[in-house]
Amino acid sequence: MRRIAILGSTGSIGTQALDVVRNHRDEYEVVALAAARNGELLRAQAQEFGVGLEAARLCADSPEVLTELASLPDVDVVLNAVVGFAGLPATLAALEHGKRLALANKESLIAGGPVVAAVRERGAGEIVPVDSEHSALYQCLRAGDRSEVRRLVLTASGGPFRAWSREQLATVTVADALRHPTWDMGAKITIDSSTLMNKGLEVIEAHELFGTPFDQVEVVVHPQSVIHSMVEFVDGATIAQLSMPDMRLPIGLALGAPARLPEAFGAIDWTEVSQLTFEAPDLDAFPCLRLAYEAGRAGGGAPAVLSGANEVAVAAFLDGRIPWTAIADVNAEALDAGTGNVHDVADVLEADRVARERAAVAIERMDRAA
Amino acid sequence: MRRIAILGSTGSIGTQALDVVRNHRDEYEVVALAAARNGELLRAQAQEFGVGLEAARLCADSPEVLTELASLPDVDVVLNAVVGFAGLPATLAALEHGKRLALANKESLIAGGPVVAAVRERGAGEIVPVDSEHSALYQCLRAGDRSEVRRLVLTASGGPFRAWSREQLATVTVADALRHPTWDMGAKITIDSSTLMNKGLEVIEAHELFGTPFDQVEVVVHPQSVIHSMVEFVDGATIAQLSMPDMRLPIGLALGAPARLPEAFGAIDWTEVSQLTFEAPDLDAFPCLRLAYEAGRAGGGAPAVLSGANEVAVAAFLDGRIPWTAIADVNAEALDAGTGNVHDVADVLEADRVARERAAVAIERMDRAA
Repeated sequence: MRRIAILGSTGSIGTQALDVVRNHRDEYEVVALAAARNGELLRAQAQEFGVGLEAARLCADSPEVLTELASLPDVDVVLNAVVGFAGLPATLAALEHGKRLALANKESLIAGGPVVAAVRERGAGEIVPVDSEHSALYQCLRAGDRSEVRRLVLTASGGPFRAWSREQLATVTVADALRHPTWDMGAKITIDSSTLMNKGLEVIEAHELFGTPFDQVEVVVHPQSVIHSMVEFVDGATIAQLSMPDMRLPIGLALGAPARLPEAFGAIDWTEVSQLTFEAPDLDAFPCLRLAYEAGRAGGGAPAVLSGANEVAVAAFLDGRIPWTAIADVNAEALDAGTGNVHDVADVLEADRVARERAAVAIERMDRAA
Repeated sequence: MRRIAILGSTGSIGTQALDVVRNHRDEYEVVALAAARNGELLRAQAQEFGVGLEAARLCADSPEVLTELASLPDVDVVLNAVVGFAGLPATLAALEHGKRLALANKESLIAGGPVVAAVRERGAGEIVPVDSEHSALYQCLRAGDRSEVRRLVLTASGGPFRAWSREQLATVTVADALRHPTWDMGAKITIDSSTLMNKGLEVIEAHELFGTPFDQVEVVVHPQSVIHSMVEFVDGATIAQLSMPDMRLPIGLALGAPARLPEAFGAIDWTEVSQLTFEAPDLDAFPCLRLAYEAGRAGGGAPAVLSGANEVAVAAFLDGRIPWTAIADVNAEALDAGTGNVHDVADVLEADRVARERAAVAIERMDRAA
């Protein structure tokens, strides 16, 4: 019996996790739920899964509440599906208390990478990624020893502007950028997908998760998104993980690993999948991906700065204040102004604050010039 | 230090295995070599790898000699790359003596399946497949527990007649059938590839190797042959193994497993691989694949009968005595006449003999009627 705390239970990942658990009530006990919003759904979840009121908290992302629930002695697995920085303290608490951390909170590893790394080093906790790309890597890595990894190959859909030239990209409108070819997602992540920034941030996450040097993390554009990622081993063998899109697959593995769920979510029908294609990403046309590698290699506060600046830049693009191509310019400017080191959560928040300030200044200047 | 016996050392697999070992003389010691022909090369190999004359045998596939070398007490790994039935006794000897068997001899598992299974059950030996498809499955299976396998997906190039109709196939010439789109192989295996019989026999091998029921072994046509095979797990995740064609990769793994070789043979350049395609095999146009499933499900001597009849049928096609479409007819006729059980090598040889006789009778009748 694994006892689970689900942080962010009313969101997309949280509700799908409960969907997974619903069929396995004899294996999983939900002992804590937290949600930033949607109290009605939270109460219904608590009732269905028998979670007491003191452990089903509508907490507006309060770090104290999230940390408390992630540290409960009767919790074995913490699913951290909190959105944004608010998830970082819970990640640290779960690892410090030796929990299995099913990690869907991106900021924990991107901005908070060095802080999380320090806790992982001394803690007994373990991270199993929920993100489909990193779950794919986690699965592929099983096919060899960690010392036998030659490179990680992250696949990218390429977004709506795949194969567009720099000239074409200069004309991109907000409506263009919100039309993702494969998925219907939130606006921020859709824009990140169009700039390849999402993939750049995933490169940083992969580095943090698996300790693979950046020179050994590669991105390949694969528009069908059936191969979720691959690992190439030293003997030349590439191991890939494939499925149709269904987040319950990686969620189920993150909760139950090493065991796999008995429900075949996203199983492939090979009479339906006729073609998988691949191409190299264009780093000139999509400089955000290059910036992410640079920030990752710089380490310290650089990923936090990139992530913070990018949020502000994307918001400015969505508001019509800067063109699509300026998102990368804003990010580059924020990074170029220097990035310090980060040792604790306060440092991460400070790097983020500075980055947002720099981005706002750059956007203001561009907006005036336009 | 692993001590290796290479049976079939002057053939393609044997010479590539020595190529692998050449770079790892501190990890591998070649202690025995056997070849059916090419004594000059055998002597050169023995000299280079320091194998004494008594253990470097030009033996014309003598079962006594092959069995003796496979059983040597100072041998850890037996690479069985003998061609045809002659390899079966060495397979049994290696397993009986608790060796690692790096298996490239197809007949061991196809015709000799039940006999090998009995020895495996009581023996301490282990089989690691050398064939690229089965090596792929072996690698993919690492990504989950054996109890979590939902199906094995063997990929097939589809051969030169992929997507041809039955009408078109009725006109196939020997020259057509020998033009394989991807590889330059021997005539027999090229014809087997054109009828999909090679894939059918691999389905039987996969069943014997991994104990997977035939309902859970699927074939998908994948003309680029970059994905060598896949395993779908119960949670819907498919794990695939990919590489450019280079047999040193599976040979190296079979010798060194669980360790992988440090040389990246067949590593993929994702700027070169632009497209992978998939389609269902056409069992009406390629009935040999269906026959292999039927023989596999029947078990006992049926796979031996199918394999034996097919050799005779392919030879008759290459001699211009029967049309390409009649290969399947001959095989079906041999199977329909009944197949008994097999308990030992003598039974297997008898099933093969009977099959060849039946095939010859059928061919003679067709030849007279034409």
